[in-house]
Amino acid sequence: MSNPIFESVYKEIFPFWNYISESDKKYICQNSFALNYPKGTNIHDGNECSGVIFVHSGSLRLYIMSDEGKDVTLYRLQKGDMCMLSASCVLKTITFDVFIDAEEDSECYVISGSAFASVSERNPQIRIFALETAVSRFSDVMWVMQQILFMSLDKRLAIFLYDESVRIGSDIITLTHEQIARYIGSAREAVSRMLKYFANEGIAEVSRKGIKILDKKRLRNLTL
Amino acid sequence: MSNPIFESVYKEIFPFWNYISESDKKYICQNSFALNYPKGTNIHDGNECSGVIFVHSGSLRLYIMSDEGKDVTLYRLQKGDMCMLSASCVLKTITFDVFIDAEEDSECYVISGSAFASVSERNPQIRIFALETAVSRFSDVMWVMQQILFMSLDKRLAIFLYDESVRIGSDIITLTHEQIARYIGSAREAVSRMLKYFANEGIAEVSRKGIKILDKKRLRNLTL
Repeated sequence: MSNPIFESVYKEIFPFWNYISESDKKYICQNSFALNYPKGTNIHDGNECSGVIFVHSGSLRLYIMSDEGKDVTLYRLQKGDMCMLSASCVLKTITFDVFIDAEEDSECYVISGSAFASVSERNPQIRIFALETAVSRFSDVMWVMQQILFMSLDKRLAIFLYDESVRIGSDIITLTHEQIARYIGSAREAVSRMLKYFANEGIAEVSRKGIKILDKKRLRNLTL
Repeated sequence: MSNPIFESVYKEIFPFWNYISESDKKYICQNSFALNYPKGTNIHDGNECSGVIFVHSGSLRLYIMSDEGKDVTLYRLQKGDMCMLSASCVLKTITFDVFIDAEEDSECYVISGSAFASVSERNPQIRIFALETAVSRFSDVMWVMQQILFMSLDKRLAIFLYDESVRIGSDIITLTHEQIARYIGSAREAVSRMLKYFANEGIAEVSRKGIKILDKKRLRNLTL
């Protein structure tokens, strides 16, 4: 008997759920595991096939790592997010290694990669879902790559926020994203996206009232 | 009447061709165009939907570009390769901009993005093919990213020179330092300095005519 929670969650998160057979549903649920990862746990390590990971609570960080141990964050998985890059046995064209750590205490539902792969072979809709999930992350990764390669907006924005907070003598900056974009010669959408990144990194808090700098030291480091 | 060449080529390159209806085949062929791009032409420019590009002869370079015009090569498309990233209207989760230039005189078959998208909506096998093509490029791009982020310049340059000499079947590479820098995501000055080092070590000879590889074994060792 599998945990009945799986069926109720999968019904919500998988757009293909109503289109697959009862036996395939049962097979996926029987090969699912609810796992708790304490903060700091390494969940996925390079080229193994850890399975399809659904984040039920907490936060995971996905990154690449050099032989020397230098790492670069690609993106974070929050509550409700799904990770396909941890299931290289499902997506055989994914040939690069990623690492995943729990950044907070996290509860995840993990579907065995081989079970997911065998069900997806019978169901094109599952295959499409898996591929689309991976492709949408491709765009996130390209964004990170452009920031790193062209090293412009994050630095420009960090310099602006740092200088502005010194100028007004406060950690709370009440300008709109539009205004900031104009000051640093960028587009509002780009500034909003970068502020969201700063927020995910815990550098600043973004709300309707404005931008509150939370970690002045890291902001300063970004300006260097 | 569409060009009869399309049907015979598509039969070879599209794994889904035998599984779609005659009318869908006809629709794809009627919305296909054989286009000749002289060397140096910009074929695709950022966020437009240029369609699905099949390289029949020649070579295309796919790259990203910063606001300041700095560019980094992601990969090249050779004879027989297919490009989905130029068809953002087919893969709506691809939200980043790429640029594509003809590196040599190239003949391409281009399928209109909207025609391909409408046929793929009726045929899950086409959707899977499009997504798999994109995901396999995800791996190429991650490899480039890791080279740039983690690898020392000597190794990157050695890999480039070695691969290029294999690709063109010659020990003489006639690219400029500027071009090489762009391919490996570095600066011209840094490449010139490293080439001077390679020359001093007797690995290559650097002249106005290009770079001649003298010691293939040592170059190969640097790539490991």
